[in-house]
Amino acid sequence: MNRQEQPQRVHFLLSKLEQIVGPEGLVSAPEDKRQYDTDWLKKWQGDSCVVVRPATTLQVSQVMRLCYENQTPVVTQGGNTGMSGGATPDGSGAQVLLSLSRMNKIREVDALNNSMCVEGGVILAQVQKAAEQVQRYFPLSLGSEGSCTIGGNLATNAGGIAVLRYGNMRDMALGLEVVLPDGRIWNGLRALRKDNTGYDLRDLFIGSEGTLGVITAAVLKLFPRLTTQATAWVGASSMSALLHMLSVLYEQCGQRLVAFEMMSAEALDLVLQHVPASNSPLQGQHAFHALIELADTHTDSLTEMLETCLEQGVEKGYIDDAILCMSLSQRQELWKIREGISEAQVRAGHCVKHDIALPISALDEFVVQASAAVSALSPGLRLINFGHMGDGNLHFNVLLPGGLGSAEIKTWTQTLNKAVHGLVHQYQGSISAEHGVGQLRRDELRIYKNPVELELMMLLKQTLDQNQIMNPGKLL
Amino acid sequence: MNRQEQPQRVHFLLSKLEQIVGPEGLVSAPEDKRQYDTDWLKKWQGDSCVVVRPATTLQVSQVMRLCYENQTPVVTQGGNTGMSGGATPDGSGAQVLLSLSRMNKIREVDALNNSMCVEGGVILAQVQKAAEQVQRYFPLSLGSEGSCTIGGNLATNAGGIAVLRYGNMRDMALGLEVVLPDGRIWNGLRALRKDNTGYDLRDLFIGSEGTLGVITAAVLKLFPRLTTQATAWVGASSMSALLHMLSVLYEQCGQRLVAFEMMSAEALDLVLQHVPASNSPLQGQHAFHALIELADTHTDSLTEMLETCLEQGVEKGYIDDAILCMSLSQRQELWKIREGISEAQVRAGHCVKHDIALPISALDEFVVQASAAVSALSPGLRLINFGHMGDGNLHFNVLLPGGLGSAEIKTWTQTLNKAVHGLVHQYQGSISAEHGVGQLRRDELRIYKNPVELELMMLLKQTLDQNQIMNPGKLL
Repeated sequence: MNRQEQPQRVHFLLSKLEQIVGPEGLVSAPEDKRQYDTDWLKKWQGDSCVVVRPATTLQVSQVMRLCYENQTPVVTQGGNTGMSGGATPDGSGAQVLLSLSRMNKIREVDALNNSMCVEGGVILAQVQKAAEQVQRYFPLSLGSEGSCTIGGNLATNAGGIAVLRYGNMRDMALGLEVVLPDGRIWNGLRALRKDNTGYDLRDLFIGSEGTLGVITAAVLKLFPRLTTQATAWVGASSMSALLHMLSVLYEQCGQRLVAFEMMSAEALDLVLQHVPASNSPLQGQHAFHALIELADTHTDSLTEMLETCLEQGVEKGYIDDAILCMSLSQRQELWKIREGISEAQVRAGHCVKHDIALPISALDEFVVQASAAVSALSPGLRLINFGHMGDGNLHFNVLLPGGLGSAEIKTWTQTLNKAVHGLVHQYQGSISAEHGVGQLRRDELRIYKNPVELELMMLLKQTLDQNQIMNPGKLL
Repeated sequence: MNRQEQPQRVHFLLSKLEQIVGPEGLVSAPEDKRQYDTDWLKKWQGDSCVVVRPATTLQVSQVMRLCYENQTPVVTQGGNTGMSGGATPDGSGAQVLLSLSRMNKIREVDALNNSMCVEGGVILAQVQKAAEQVQRYFPLSLGSEGSCTIGGNLATNAGGIAVLRYGNMRDMALGLEVVLPDGRIWNGLRALRKDNTGYDLRDLFIGSEGTLGVITAAVLKLFPRLTTQATAWVGASSMSALLHMLSVLYEQCGQRLVAFEMMSAEALDLVLQHVPASNSPLQGQHAFHALIELADTHTDSLTEMLETCLEQGVEKGYIDDAILCMSLSQRQELWKIREGISEAQVRAGHCVKHDIALPISALDEFVVQASAAVSALSPGLRLINFGHMGDGNLHFNVLLPGGLGSAEIKTWTQTLNKAVHGLVHQYQGSISAEHGVGQLRRDELRIYKNPVELELMMLLKQTLDQNQIMNPGKLL
């Protein structure tokens, strides 16, 4: 179906949709649709047939049933903060954009069970706040937490800062409610820690990027509140040395270790250059830096514990220098540097980004090889290497020289992706650690994914989405 | 195919299997087959066509290909320690029993990546030991750890003692190698903490009880070694009070809380009565007891922390009495009581067992209701209620009066299952928290499982096991 070609069918669809969600649930004027049709990075520009905003699970079910019967493709969207174009429709004008933004109710908070039931359109920051109100903690934390939604976090299995300690979004979900492509509602909203009664459907929908169903609600795990923190910044002469520092912290501090955020000297320099009022935390030059944070539920001697570990690190030569935060404002300054990398990259020019994961034990060798491969391509390329080192997740980005045209940027992107992802594949890593596949990595997935796994994924897609209406052109 | 009816086909199959695994890989004499054909509880007695024991993934693949082409059903078996008859063949003499006992290699230990790659037939205790050798910890811990295998632990998503802190087996796996029903090998042995490149096939196979494929190897997560422990025993007047004690511990000790094992006064009495040299830890009568354990990577003041929490518990009336372990031998004595429940049940007579899970916040009300329902059936029934309370997992068992015949036991089993599981269903719980469905709960699954979920499960089974040869008669 195409809006231009089949105005009658479109008219029929819109009137049926309006019957389901009411006029307040439809957005059809082009100027109003634009914010939904374009991703926030302005990298993908789509054109949906209509934006439909149901307010209840039943309405989502009726919308899906209608689209299923009419074989109308559906693109589900949460907060529209994705990095891979997974929630942006194509340009055909034929796809219905299903926004969950009105499904924003916190259905239940159960502190005794350490769980919370929320709808898919609830914003992450609101979940964090609701947990705090019952002296609990919801650990998912992302740059976009003020606008991304739980449904989107689940659909993309979001990662972020605290994966080292709490795992990915997948690890924070107990149950799901999902509307299937044909409109059936699967109520899997279990609030149980243990349930061995059959196949794990929950984890099949989590991370499926809207290609198998619509996640309308979820039961989330809550955790004990963290009341103490200790933060440090360290400098090391090599990735290998820094990895040994990580190992010491892991062994001695266990689950108190909540962040181990690495950045290369080049990444730090970029922040110092482009983010106003930012200062280097350490004197002297260090090839690699890391922001380390411990946290605990108990007002324990965390700072002393961190200090002891860092002293051991210096003694053994794992780190060359370190500072320990003595105030909240000092801590904020350090995190400002870490969080400033995104902004610095935008200001510095065009970055070709790689969101990759590797076994931690392979990071050192990989970085040596991949850095050499990038340097060999052109001396004008600038490597901005940083990431969640404790999870083996690097943002191995390459800053292109200024003044390139869009065709040159495209060519460089392909060349660099091939060089970096080829090596990631050799080291048995992942070409999308936390950002998802979406439109961005779809073609590359077919190159690097194990063929048997790809066959199984396609088989599941064909089976669960028989009319092939769920987010076509994404992921698979 | 039936052994008696089609001797030629059986002969053909055996000779082909021998070509694949060699004579050392086949067990066909009835007296040798018996230990595989009967479950360890002697509850299910099967009769396989042959037991085949491949030594490599390639051999498993060739065996599966052969069985697929001949439409021969296959029952995969690990350590044969299951509770639900999931690894016992039927009595037809037509099923091939695929034992992974020769696939027992630890392929790789990577301390820096906190991971280990092992074959499916490796015994759990060997994995625990291999982790210790590199100063790491593998937390899965079960009564059968000296004989159960990692493949079986994965196929049944095993639970056990440390779920409160570390989750189920599912949460300890990074990657899998699986032989599919048609013999294709899926190499999903990734050792990554983050990987968002498509559907989560790993979790589909974990917990599928051998009905979708054969798990031949896995990459497991390792954790920091725990170096300090603090253990206590508490008595409380109600389940509700005990739940509040749990909440205090969770809030203040966070992830140090590794066990919160509850038992009712009746369960404790049963141990004192039947296990030699066991003594009641506390003076006086308490309706409910709990064994509490904290553990940490750091030689911290754990005992003081536990003491402070228990003092708060007494002050607020959550517990009535408590003792704190002051020696290793005292700790062993307390755990001996907890672990003695299984033995005490066997000695006391016939128990109708219920391995159930509920939201923790529903435990109190459920136990009141379910206890009343059991009492109302007959005053001669004795309730043995204990379990992993921190996970909401109760072993809500009922000891039948002595001297009943097998027909009466069967009738009581059905009556009690209906009463207890009916209530579990009302409280949105699970009728199999950690033991799995197998043969034991297959019929009940159809009663209590959400119909949409059951449809999806059947669809997945039909799709992934087209010839319906994987462990027929189990789970679905």
